[in-house]
Amino acid sequence: MFDVNAIRADFPILSREVNGKPLVYLDSGASAQKPQAVIDAVTQAYSQEYANVHRGLHFLSNLATEKYEGVRGKIARFLNAGSEDEIVMNSGTTEGINLVSYGWAAPRLEAGDEIVLSVMEHHANIVPWHFLRERQGVVLKWVEPEADGSLDPEKVIAAMGPKTKLVALTQMSNVLGTVVDVATVCAAARARGIATLIDGSQAAVHMPVDVQAIGCDFYAITGHKLYGPSGSGAIYIRKERMAEMRPFLGGGDMIKEVTRDGICYADGPMRFEAGTPGIVQMIGMGVALDYIMDIGMEAIAAHERDIAEYASARLHRLNWLNIQGQAKGKGAIFSFTLEGAAHAHDISTILDKKGVAVRAGHHCAGPLMEHLGVTATCRASFAMYNTRAEVDTLIEALELAHDLFA
Amino acid sequence: MFDVNAIRADFPILSREVNGKPLVYLDSGASAQKPQAVIDAVTQAYSQEYANVHRGLHFLSNLATEKYEGVRGKIARFLNAGSEDEIVMNSGTTEGINLVSYGWAAPRLEAGDEIVLSVMEHHANIVPWHFLRERQGVVLKWVEPEADGSLDPEKVIAAMGPKTKLVALTQMSNVLGTVVDVATVCAAARARGIATLIDGSQAAVHMPVDVQAIGCDFYAITGHKLYGPSGSGAIYIRKERMAEMRPFLGGGDMIKEVTRDGICYADGPMRFEAGTPGIVQMIGMGVALDYIMDIGMEAIAAHERDIAEYASARLHRLNWLNIQGQAKGKGAIFSFTLEGAAHAHDISTILDKKGVAVRAGHHCAGPLMEHLGVTATCRASFAMYNTRAEVDTLIEALELAHDLFA
Repeated sequence: MFDVNAIRADFPILSREVNGKPLVYLDSGASAQKPQAVIDAVTQAYSQEYANVHRGLHFLSNLATEKYEGVRGKIARFLNAGSEDEIVMNSGTTEGINLVSYGWAAPRLEAGDEIVLSVMEHHANIVPWHFLRERQGVVLKWVEPEADGSLDPEKVIAAMGPKTKLVALTQMSNVLGTVVDVATVCAAARARGIATLIDGSQAAVHMPVDVQAIGCDFYAITGHKLYGPSGSGAIYIRKERMAEMRPFLGGGDMIKEVTRDGICYADGPMRFEAGTPGIVQMIGMGVALDYIMDIGMEAIAAHERDIAEYASARLHRLNWLNIQGQAKGKGAIFSFTLEGAAHAHDISTILDKKGVAVRAGHHCAGPLMEHLGVTATCRASFAMYNTRAEVDTLIEALELAHDLFA
Repeated sequence: MFDVNAIRADFPILSREVNGKPLVYLDSGASAQKPQAVIDAVTQAYSQEYANVHRGLHFLSNLATEKYEGVRGKIARFLNAGSEDEIVMNSGTTEGINLVSYGWAAPRLEAGDEIVLSVMEHHANIVPWHFLRERQGVVLKWVEPEADGSLDPEKVIAAMGPKTKLVALTQMSNVLGTVVDVATVCAAARARGIATLIDGSQAAVHMPVDVQAIGCDFYAITGHKLYGPSGSGAIYIRKERMAEMRPFLGGGDMIKEVTRDGICYADGPMRFEAGTPGIVQMIGMGVALDYIMDIGMEAIAAHERDIAEYASARLHRLNWLNIQGQAKGKGAIFSFTLEGAAHAHDISTILDKKGVAVRAGHHCAGPLMEHLGVTATCRASFAMYNTRAEVDTLIEALELAHDLFA
């Protein structure tokens, strides 16, 4: 049974105060807090079980390797990949998408070839494609969201043409909370021989993910949003696509043999994992995935649905608040501005005085901000450890901000 | 005053046993152990002070940003960079050298242009240049070490020709311990308008480094070898070179503005730091640098010199041991094979039974292995926390191995 108080008790930072008030952490969309089990795993690794992986034969190296490599299978299970050989471990979504841009797209796409994107994408799923536009004349095709913030899969499908080589979409908007029907898009893309990359940075935190059911070629996740350490992450790469890729980062561990004249590259995911990896971060990410899989993604999603509905009802009653995005089934991410003079940054500062941590800014989503006609919003992003009472505190703090700026 | 016992007491893992024997950790060349201060900083960050950096305005985000950004100045001080704007923070040397390969060299070097390397380089300082050979016809020119394992700077200088665009050298061989006179090479390269990259993965751990005195353009370090967390690192980039570079990894934080049609990139080191960084790892790396700067790099170097001399004398008395590299002033890294049938891996396994952790393999130095005419060596690599008594334990364990294989 989902017990939010038991979960909260597992996160030491949630017991602290900020500015003399209990912390109300509504910034999990930027990065989530870590349960004690993850912190303990990191401490244990550094205190008693640390060595470099893969290249040693001594006890500590074998132990660290076993723990580190064990994470690959956990990630495969978390995403329901067909095999752990389809999982490349890395430092997060940004590295994952850049791997696809440099390793799969750059050697393959020619001038005039198209990449279809939504206007809701995060910069991590935009800038690597802009590189290809700047450097080799690839064309970016943008699909706009509907007025309610939803993304119509048929519009994405309609944007696919004979020159389209890749569709790159988020499964959940980090600004609007919109959940995108990526399975419908991926099926249509696959039928046309078009590759698909899904940015799962937000979605994987809030709902069950099944990459085989989605039918995508690439699915990127980031550990620090999944209650794991900073600098951890992974990308699922369908094996047929992995075979098409050339190496991206060069260094130790991704080779079989190096001579003065040439290289023989390693097979499988190792080919894309250069140098000493984020050993302890990945071990911590594995513990974080165990933690949320033990709770169950369905249970987490149900709890967050309750929070989202409650927050939505209370926020929409504030008629001086402009709330962006009301797509059906959206996640518990709310972006808003306040009517009148107050800048999003000012609101955030006032909320902070009440212990309420929200983010203010462009949320790394420039094209969406332009589409919405704003330069910045405040964003309250909820996670499994948030409560209805915290929604109430947010509302009170917003009312105070409104009073101050009215 | 340098007190090795006090230092050892700061590293919890050094008190543990392996296979029923006290751990004798002689694998710091692969990755160093972590002092309690670093472990505590990581725990504190995750338990009480965690949030994403740069993009927030709330208390925890400001606190994390302040701690994270404070590390840049520590790294600048550690390397004696002219400005902290010349420090790009990253996940380690591999990412750093790939940044130079993709961001500086790839858009600049043409077919037939040359990169001068030593045969002693680590794969991290080889594979990124092989990429340029494979992809754009760049020529790699190799300089061989002398019979004693030293590298003659004049031979490196003699290899520089009119087509040479870059010299990429390690300052300390991870296999032989050879210290390279990189300042002489960099001065000659600079006079010829040739860029210089120094791989400081090993050197920065064992001796004072002054990038201005060296006169290099790029100097890469890795946090996990510097007693810091896995997944931390940095690269010094002289500001004139940084201005020549194009972005490498694309994503959040490295932009000023992103629209559907274009990007305005951030200035300075931020341009090369995409996405959520390794926040907590970098905070930990800062604490590790404080720790070693408090002890003093001169004091660390003096202690390790003593260990190196003692180990060298004792190892060379074993007339059945083939020791690779005896360059004058070499660091405390010893690679060897055992005469007779024993493979390096077997020796390592026997040493492990005695609690002695050494590495066996090619040490990510394929061309050097080929040059030495071996496929693998055992490597005992010492660090500031090692003692003469541990050298004695190594010798005893080697004698046991010799008896078993004799």
